[in-house]
Amino acid sequence: MTVRISFAELISLLDRIFRNGGCSGPVAAALAHNMAEAERDGATSHGIFRMAGYLSSLKSGWVDGRAEPRIEDVAPGFLRVDGANGFAVPALVAATEQFIAKARANGIALCAIRNSHHFSALWPDVEPFARKGFIAIEMVNSNAAVVPFGGHKKLYGTNPLGFAAPRRGGEPLVFDQASSAVALGEVLIAAREGHALEPGIGVDREGKPTTDPNAVLEGGALLPFGGYKGSSMAMMMEIMAAALAGGNFSFEYDFSTHPGAVTPRTAQTMILIDPSRGASYELADRIEVLIAEMHAAGQDRLPGDRRYANRRAAEVEGVPIPDAEMAALRALL
Amino acid sequence: MTVRISFAELISLLDRIFRNGGCSGPVAAALAHNMAEAERDGATSHGIFRMAGYLSSLKSGWVDGRAEPRIEDVAPGFLRVDGANGFAVPALVAATEQFIAKARANGIALCAIRNSHHFSALWPDVEPFARKGFIAIEMVNSNAAVVPFGGHKKLYGTNPLGFAAPRRGGEPLVFDQASSAVALGEVLIAAREGHALEPGIGVDREGKPTTDPNAVLEGGALLPFGGYKGSSMAMMMEIMAAALAGGNFSFEYDFSTHPGAVTPRTAQTMILIDPSRGASYELADRIEVLIAEMHAAGQDRLPGDRRYANRRAAEVEGVPIPDAEMAALRALL
Repeated sequence: MTVRISFAELISLLDRIFRNGGCSGPVAAALAHNMAEAERDGATSHGIFRMAGYLSSLKSGWVDGRAEPRIEDVAPGFLRVDGANGFAVPALVAATEQFIAKARANGIALCAIRNSHHFSALWPDVEPFARKGFIAIEMVNSNAAVVPFGGHKKLYGTNPLGFAAPRRGGEPLVFDQASSAVALGEVLIAAREGHALEPGIGVDREGKPTTDPNAVLEGGALLPFGGYKGSSMAMMMEIMAAALAGGNFSFEYDFSTHPGAVTPRTAQTMILIDPSRGASYELADRIEVLIAEMHAAGQDRLPGDRRYANRRAAEVEGVPIPDAEMAALRALL
Repeated sequence: MTVRISFAELISLLDRIFRNGGCSGPVAAALAHNMAEAERDGATSHGIFRMAGYLSSLKSGWVDGRAEPRIEDVAPGFLRVDGANGFAVPALVAATEQFIAKARANGIALCAIRNSHHFSALWPDVEPFARKGFIAIEMVNSNAAVVPFGGHKKLYGTNPLGFAAPRRGGEPLVFDQASSAVALGEVLIAAREGHALEPGIGVDREGKPTTDPNAVLEGGALLPFGGYKGSSMAMMMEIMAAALAGGNFSFEYDFSTHPGAVTPRTAQTMILIDPSRGASYELADRIEVLIAEMHAAGQDRLPGDRRYANRRAAEVEGVPIPDAEMAALRALL
């Protein structure tokens, strides 16, 4: 059975849980909003499913729920943020106003956040900027889980790329995709359900291709999407996030001394572009032309469509949450 | 048989041919250098092999070999260039000094070139910026040849992404990859040699998957690399290049009234980042740490390694060119 809860109520509930878990007011508010958005939009792998990981990481002392990000204004178009070993989402929230001002004044700006833990999806980060008329590009590195193309040992994180652009006739055009062939969650599900993986998804502990999900999970690794090209994307994320921002590569940190810790202590970079500088007409109108042609070419669904449909339903009916999960949440209060 | 010619001599020869073909001095110089670099580095599909396409496009009146790009300084971090229906490479050359100054002053800058024809590789564009210490990201859209994921009609160009970053211990780390599963040239070779394509490369004129190279070439299309993720990359290039810069989408221009024309009249965007703003230590040193780990994980060859090896050989022995191709070049003088 499923209960329905309003988006506002869900945020409030999650906010209290994060505070109980050791988060400051601003951190709890940012994480609660982020998690509630994922749950509302049906992106449940980044919804309340993640609460256990947040709380155990907080409890282990690996991540600081009361961190106060330090914003460093280093150039007219360049912000640096020291996440102070806190979560990345509240660090981005703290930098947003300055970041937008820089993008407006310069046409483009970059925000590099280091010493931070990104444990959620990227689309909730980039979408709001597209609603304000910007193009946003976000690159994050995470926890070593992916072998480079031609290699045998995991090295890269699943290293997602987030992209958002404004539309004239609809919700922002947003995608958020890992550099790995699939998310680790899909391998976990295959293992639980006892079915084989498609070829090209993972390798075993010797680095040999396998379709056995357990071989991937037990010392194996994921493959990049699309062969060497996806591998280059994963490498680019390590450079753009970790190396540029001044954070850890996906293979550099070690939380084994903090039992219960699961969040990656890495880095991220976002680029914000003001498209009104770019052309003699409106970008949002031009994107409508592109989308019309994508539909005419037979692509029925746009990236993000399913999330927006779930969101519209949740706005009317409330956010659906399985009874057992809601009970587990309330037990955390 | 193969002749050897020095890099400088090759540039000089190509320069004269471009001038004979109707290019101004600056345009001929930029294109000759670009083409000679590709030939020298063994990237022969972008080398002198392309001369016929350049010359027939010039002769058709589709592209202006004497175009004078107009540079518009629209914001501290944002340059716009009207390519004036000329080639993109000389337009970028014309903007380079201002572009670098903006990136140094602001930490990041963007250069959007519209009304331009990019008919070569991206790595010669981005590599020089990495030699000066910058991260460079270039996105170009081209000629409709790729179906969107789930679609049946070609829409996107092969839309390449170019990336370059500086290294401490070696040549810049550079990749340049199409959003399509393979380059069109590989399909042409398969058709000529009479062998089937791998699955996942192309569709026929009905949009159905095929391994027959002729079915791809005769009204069919290429598929994006890596399924829906590569398709999102191709879409992002259309937005970042055409929509942002104010140029044509890959499906928008029509050169059928200019018989002989083959160059795409589209657009491109480059982002330049000054990594010295980014961290408390040097990016080029950090990239050495990443590369060491890539090697330890079993990735022996880095993107660009083969080009650099060919370049080193050509610097000693000269650029190798098949006799027949050299004769054909000299006949153009």
